[in-house]
Amino acid sequence: MKQVVLRNYPRGAPSAGDFAVETAEMPEPAIGEVLLKTYWLSLDPLIRFSLDERRLTGRAQVRPGEVLYGGAVSRIEASNVAAFSVGDWVEGRTGWREFAAVDPAVVPLRKIDAGAAPPSAALGLLGMPGQTAHACMIEVGRVTTGETVVISAAAGAVGTIAGQIGKILGARVVGIAGGPEKCRAVEALGFDACVDYRASDYADQLAAACPGGIDVYVENVGGAVTQAVLPLLKYQARMPVCGFIAYYGMGLEGPGPDRLPGFMRTIMSKGLEVRGFGGALVAGPDALDTLARWHGQGKIRLAETVVEGLDEAPAAFAGIFSGNANVGKLVVRVAAE
Amino acid sequence: MKQVVLRNYPRGAPSAGDFAVETAEMPEPAIGEVLLKTYWLSLDPLIRFSLDERRLTGRAQVRPGEVLYGGAVSRIEASNVAAFSVGDWVEGRTGWREFAAVDPAVVPLRKIDAGAAPPSAALGLLGMPGQTAHACMIEVGRVTTGETVVISAAAGAVGTIAGQIGKILGARVVGIAGGPEKCRAVEALGFDACVDYRASDYADQLAAACPGGIDVYVENVGGAVTQAVLPLLKYQARMPVCGFIAYYGMGLEGPGPDRLPGFMRTIMSKGLEVRGFGGALVAGPDALDTLARWHGQGKIRLAETVVEGLDEAPAAFAGIFSGNANVGKLVVRVAAE
Repeated sequence: MKQVVLRNYPRGAPSAGDFAVETAEMPEPAIGEVLLKTYWLSLDPLIRFSLDERRLTGRAQVRPGEVLYGGAVSRIEASNVAAFSVGDWVEGRTGWREFAAVDPAVVPLRKIDAGAAPPSAALGLLGMPGQTAHACMIEVGRVTTGETVVISAAAGAVGTIAGQIGKILGARVVGIAGGPEKCRAVEALGFDACVDYRASDYADQLAAACPGGIDVYVENVGGAVTQAVLPLLKYQARMPVCGFIAYYGMGLEGPGPDRLPGFMRTIMSKGLEVRGFGGALVAGPDALDTLARWHGQGKIRLAETVVEGLDEAPAAFAGIFSGNANVGKLVVRVAAE
Repeated sequence: MKQVVLRNYPRGAPSAGDFAVETAEMPEPAIGEVLLKTYWLSLDPLIRFSLDERRLTGRAQVRPGEVLYGGAVSRIEASNVAAFSVGDWVEGRTGWREFAAVDPAVVPLRKIDAGAAPPSAALGLLGMPGQTAHACMIEVGRVTTGETVVISAAAGAVGTIAGQIGKILGARVVGIAGGPEKCRAVEALGFDACVDYRASDYADQLAAACPGGIDVYVENVGGAVTQAVLPLLKYQARMPVCGFIAYYGMGLEGPGPDRLPGFMRTIMSKGLEVRGFGGALVAGPDALDTLARWHGQGKIRLAETVVEGLDEAPAAFAGIFSGNANVGKLVVRVAAE
């Protein structure tokens, strides 16, 4: 079977050559383990944090020669665990490989209702991105009718969901994305407007799209994208921090000038509330049920870009950091259902 | 009568020479105005924001030749306003001058109960610093028994109050201040420990004083002081932003490297909550009553440094930015009570 390993630690943005596709022995499930066949793999910018030579966060680190980890949807092929039966769909961090033998007490597996939505939705709307978007808009953003919400990386897994939640809540929703193609896709999901951050007059376009200022800014990007947002924030605006892809792989310091003074000044003078999640389930326990119901009612569409085959996973993962053209959750179809 | 005017816009940290003490005509109260005699003047780092040539915040700007503004405690000498009587004590932004004629509809005046506490307390514990400290510890910090709170600028007007509130709430309270003299004064107020940020092993001392990590960090400083705090913050810590004196007068950008990436990473990976006030009354309506009650019960002591005479105000104000030795609220006695 195939698997993807880290060849060397990426420097800055990952490239496909930092990874290698290998052939490995088929795993055998031991006592207390299940044998999984991988169908869908999640490509997520957060995986970048597990690839730092110097461990800066609490995430498990992958060393050169080891298999990459990220969310995956699999089906039970064989089971030595009472709670799991052959044929069950599950989601868990089971690795970038076609088959895996895992102990559910070590690697938590979440059962999926494949009848409610396509199994890959467990990596997007009905998984971590959905919970994150719910937390951004509801628990942290506290978005209400008539407010203006700006969402960076609007074409991404979290952004596409957050924007649709914003419309359900009655807000004006403005996306920020890279390139006219992505912006059209974002607007097709119901966003009121989408601004292309690659445009030379990006800051002016953003200001024009938010004539009354910004109540909630969903931060996924950082860097120059965010610098144009800060002056438009209204007094006591909320800023949920879901990510900051511009800084991934940068460590704790970037090239000067130091923009922290301006950020602190904005926080203080505008009474800003900035909050990160740290992988916590800030979203309430009913978040996934709510999202599934909205999906069933046709209020939220699944947005997904599919990459075919494990061989393509390294290049597709690297593409996230160069602003590739995918819209919605980026998944790899490892096996046909 | 004397007054203090801006001579030129300060560059970076203010110096006494940026200001001039002048003699001016005694003001005459017009219809609808009261004549005030100034007794106490508040020296507050926030005044720095009104002295920027390029207006970066919403505060009123003082131009060269104009009188400086900041909180002051005065007594009514003559009144053409029904709501105010001769002899009333009031607090308001009435200017750095010995006498002022003001319209209370333009410059709000708050009446003071001079029987409950010394009138100067209206600039400290029973004024904006008290409300800010209350908001930091209670509304935003949500400090509870057994938590560890770290307070920067612990010897300052807000810090001395915040730390005493922390002890009332049952927290472990660690201060950060500049120099052993200030640290001793902070510990004398009941803080469990105080760390000198000028010590060569400041970061190690801070870590040793917070063996279980930090639940709440009251930010008053920024810069290197804060960089040592961030690694010690616990998961889902709270960070009320009351100030960032290290960056005052710096504009929006400081010398590199850019530390914003590391701050965003901390916010995200630790699920940090960062919140500014922007001059808002984040503190509840009963905050000043609560503080007055605690003071009456002997649970909070007034901490105040008195500068004698308006002539000394410029040098004392400049001293705030060079880390002078004052402890508690810095006030100028303009006239003897």
